[in-house]
Amino acid sequence: MDSRTYPEFSTHYPLILSTFMKRPVRYYPDQVGVVYRNHLTGDYLRFTWKEWYQRVCQLGHALQDSLHIESGQPGQLGDRVGTMAYNTHRHLELYYAVPCIGATLHPINIRLSEEHIVYTINHAQDKVIFVDDIVLPLLENIYDRIKETVKLFVYMSDKPGLPTSSIPGLIEYETLLAAQRNSFDWPYLHEDTNASLCYTTGTTGQPKGATFTHRQLYLMILHGMARQAVANTPSYIESSERLGENAVPMLNTPLFHIHGWGSPWSTVFCAQKVVLPGTFTVRGFCELVEREKVTSVGIVPTIAAMLLEFKDFDKYDLSSLTNIGVGGGALPLGLKTKLEQVLPHFRVGSGYGMTETAPVAIGAFVKKHMVDWPKSSIDEVMVKTGMPALGMEVEVLDGTGKPVPWDDKTVGEIVMRGPWVTQAYYKAPEATAAVWYDDWFHSGDLAKVDANGFITIADRLKDVIRSGAEMVPTVLLENLIAMADFVLEAAVVGVPDPVWGEKPMAVITLRPGMQADEDDVIDFLQEHGVKTGKITRWMLPKLVAFVNEIPKTSVGKFSKKTIRDNLDRFLPLAKETASHQMA
Amino acid sequence: MDSRTYPEFSTHYPLILSTFMKRPVRYYPDQVGVVYRNHLTGDYLRFTWKEWYQRVCQLGHALQDSLHIESGQPGQLGDRVGTMAYNTHRHLELYYAVPCIGATLHPINIRLSEEHIVYTINHAQDKVIFVDDIVLPLLENIYDRIKETVKLFVYMSDKPGLPTSSIPGLIEYETLLAAQRNSFDWPYLHEDTNASLCYTTGTTGQPKGATFTHRQLYLMILHGMARQAVANTPSYIESSERLGENAVPMLNTPLFHIHGWGSPWSTVFCAQKVVLPGTFTVRGFCELVEREKVTSVGIVPTIAAMLLEFKDFDKYDLSSLTNIGVGGGALPLGLKTKLEQVLPHFRVGSGYGMTETAPVAIGAFVKKHMVDWPKSSIDEVMVKTGMPALGMEVEVLDGTGKPVPWDDKTVGEIVMRGPWVTQAYYKAPEATAAVWYDDWFHSGDLAKVDANGFITIADRLKDVIRSGAEMVPTVLLENLIAMADFVLEAAVVGVPDPVWGEKPMAVITLRPGMQADEDDVIDFLQEHGVKTGKITRWMLPKLVAFVNEIPKTSVGKFSKKTIRDNLDRFLPLAKETASHQMA
Repeated sequence: MDSRTYPEFSTHYPLILSTFMKRPVRYYPDQVGVVYRNHLTGDYLRFTWKEWYQRVCQLGHALQDSLHIESGQPGQLGDRVGTMAYNTHRHLELYYAVPCIGATLHPINIRLSEEHIVYTINHAQDKVIFVDDIVLPLLENIYDRIKETVKLFVYMSDKPGLPTSSIPGLIEYETLLAAQRNSFDWPYLHEDTNASLCYTTGTTGQPKGATFTHRQLYLMILHGMARQAVANTPSYIESSERLGENAVPMLNTPLFHIHGWGSPWSTVFCAQKVVLPGTFTVRGFCELVEREKVTSVGIVPTIAAMLLEFKDFDKYDLSSLTNIGVGGGALPLGLKTKLEQVLPHFRVGSGYGMTETAPVAIGAFVKKHMVDWPKSSIDEVMVKTGMPALGMEVEVLDGTGKPVPWDDKTVGEIVMRGPWVTQAYYKAPEATAAVWYDDWFHSGDLAKVDANGFITIADRLKDVIRSGAEMVPTVLLENLIAMADFVLEAAVVGVPDPVWGEKPMAVITLRPGMQADEDDVIDFLQEHGVKTGKITRWMLPKLVAFVNEIPKTSVGKFSKKTIRDNLDRFLPLAKETASHQMA
Repeated sequence: MDSRTYPEFSTHYPLILSTFMKRPVRYYPDQVGVVYRNHLTGDYLRFTWKEWYQRVCQLGHALQDSLHIESGQPGQLGDRVGTMAYNTHRHLELYYAVPCIGATLHPINIRLSEEHIVYTINHAQDKVIFVDDIVLPLLENIYDRIKETVKLFVYMSDKPGLPTSSIPGLIEYETLLAAQRNSFDWPYLHEDTNASLCYTTGTTGQPKGATFTHRQLYLMILHGMARQAVANTPSYIESSERLGENAVPMLNTPLFHIHGWGSPWSTVFCAQKVVLPGTFTVRGFCELVEREKVTSVGIVPTIAAMLLEFKDFDKYDLSSLTNIGVGGGALPLGLKTKLEQVLPHFRVGSGYGMTETAPVAIGAFVKKHMVDWPKSSIDEVMVKTGMPALGMEVEVLDGTGKPVPWDDKTVGEIVMRGPWVTQAYYKAPEATAAVWYDDWFHSGDLAKVDANGFITIADRLKDVIRSGAEMVPTVLLENLIAMADFVLEAAVVGVPDPVWGEKPMAVITLRPGMQADEDDVIDFLQEHGVKTGKITRWMLPKLVAFVNEIPKTSVGKFSKKTIRDNLDRFLPLAKETASHQMA
């Protein structure tokens, strides 16, 4: 008698991404699952789950049979498929078809410098690139520098037909799909098959390619969902905020930014109607919320400011929005007050992640005993970076490798390990060894921990200011300054000083119509920072420069390197502060 | 330069049970985490998470250093540790310490027959048994039959000291722990290390031992939690029902029943205050709800009936109970109405699982479009067995191995595969091969699927009645009969018939104070079964027997085998129905 067991369907049942898309098409085949609005034309495309799934199946066949994309085995990447695309239904199709046949998805960050885009494409050795019509000019600009690597280009557009292009042999996406069968017997891949390759921003050197397996991405999504079981809902939150499968998320985070923060997978697994805006525009945002009854969005402070300045804001019915998270940097106080007036459901929510953590790592959290606190107190908690993601081990280690005390003061380096931390940079063993040692992945970010176990980012190791024997945590200072109602944005960098080695300089933009001088900044920091014990007096900026714009990186972070490299331009704008005289 | 990667902390980060207990002790060390009430004395024991965790650490040392329990490697079980215990803090400690050192937890089902208890202990080759004081007499009864296998016995009691016992060398649990260090460096076990061994009830033969790894149990819990992200909350549910970490679950399901349905792990991972009642008593239930502000319980209809008949029910404040699930069998209509009057938050919730699925497999689910339905309509959905657990593949296959149509009529066998289905029965390869074939685990249960994809259990394959060329699904009939307000419980079995082969007989107990005869049963089935299309006329029972009690198995299910084996006792009580004349 054959007495075989089935580990591949029990103890080793594979954790793979195809599981996510099978669920909505099985239970909600005829409901609209994916809505895409072209942000240039304002035209809409709507797909039922069945229609969208059939397109993914067609894409799977096209990749395998027409483009001859090969799948990989554990420990060895399959062919790389690059995308240069915004948030469209097609990009979402690529997020499934590519990894689910066993190939590697490489979402190319089209906001990087051309030099870095070229570098990542050649380093990844993309076999094919799928490009949006509006990104084609960028691709044409770099074509000569990647043509030895990439031989196939697929053109994606809402309009039928191919444009004249300097790139030979463009393939039309829709034509490619139309020729394929619309069902696919998705393989039960080994869960250690590589699924994606995401490059870091490369602020200091060349971008590095973080690799992720199906298992890793599946477990990131699953732990993120499981977090809802432990989440404590503050008492001020209204019962109308029923979400689950009926949530309607709009995906604002570009899908070329670290897996769109996981949203392409979590929303589909939850069978939520996915609303794709191409790229963010104020009018598109308002129109999509109104027409699609969007319930959930995550926005950064810059987008919040753009929304508030929009003249037609009041003309739209945004009442469906019950779950608005604002993250990615401290929210200026004035902006917060204004947002609360017009968007009653708006909530602050801070978080921290890196390309190497796919990116979910740390998130704001309301602890048990805080649920009945008033909203203003909970907001203070929610702007802290927060607690490790469920399932992720995060420690803040001091110079001797020991966890720092939970005193909200001692600064150490954030180290992490867990089911979805990248195992290795692609083709860069030395870069891997520089971050993975002593059993931990080393983030290069500094933080402190408070009595609740909440982690607050203090600085990037390389941005920290060394003033005398002390370290000035610049991110803490920036977040504090941003709380002043006259401040739009603030960056703090170290400038050379003959006595102290370095001294902190604050570079600030004011909110439109507001006025302030360096003393106002110091007074505010004295009142809300020094007196409250959040910073010490010696951390106060010695210089303050008011500018029209703060230099930023491709992902919208302050580019402190640019400021430091251009001190001849910034120092003349700076004035010495009272704290300078005191020191 | 060393360029090693850390797969053990990234792509292969182990999914192990120790992760669950580390979370509450890290973030809520000084909050009360575990409350145990001795159901005989009414005394309470309370432990902060730190205190309870330290006891788990002490138990880990005791197992390793004092009892010399050896851990296992993937593919080979560690030493088996048997428990004969109720729902106490000590049993919860065993649920962590045993698997987390790499040994195998064997929760012995003390409701089995003595013969089967002896069989499971000898088959599992338990090296040690941990026994509750009130279970000691049972252990003494079987001691002679297991003493060649088990050499170590640990006695667990709230009272210090050891009793006189026929079992030599009893070890006192509390003394054993007191001698140990209260911290433990829990190993990063391979996730494929075996964690538990659970025996089936053995209704037809000897019990079979289903084995589970850490990975399997971790993934069952994690998928169960993730389900909250997709769950749709009906609009009638009040906002006061905030749960998350602030939920206070009372664990009514015995921990010796298939991992207590997973609650020992999910509640601790969620850092919820765990309330342990020893075993269920009506007074204990009411007192614990009132004193501990219990929010969540799962109860079976029998317990619900006991609660309602309790004279002092009104004297307790049960208002904290916002989440009461009633499952495990159809809820009689009269009981439902009464429950809704006294417990406004009560909800019906059906489910299906087996020992072999650890046990989560299928659960009632409110689909997207149902959220705004009135409670009565949603209740109708919630008494259906429901949808596959998130992450589990479940199909209902007809005789040719094809999925049945979703027509709510065609009956097939439930087959399953997924991350936590047992890979194999312990030391029983032929029994394994009898259930695992053609890529699926075969449940032996019959079901049909409706247009929503909801699965309804129709019968056990071996209980099905073959009447002429047709199969009569007995569970469907039983659930229908139980909806009559005069019915307390109903079982349907086949009895031999010269013409039909078998004909269905309904064995019924009436609710106290109610009267009815066989025509009332048939009339009710005509009205609510035949007319509504749920059953056909030829399925109507040909015989109805009113009895004082229906025989049950150790886990409270109807023992149809006992009825079939004692037809000489039941047939004289049965009367022929009108449907008999019609046929």
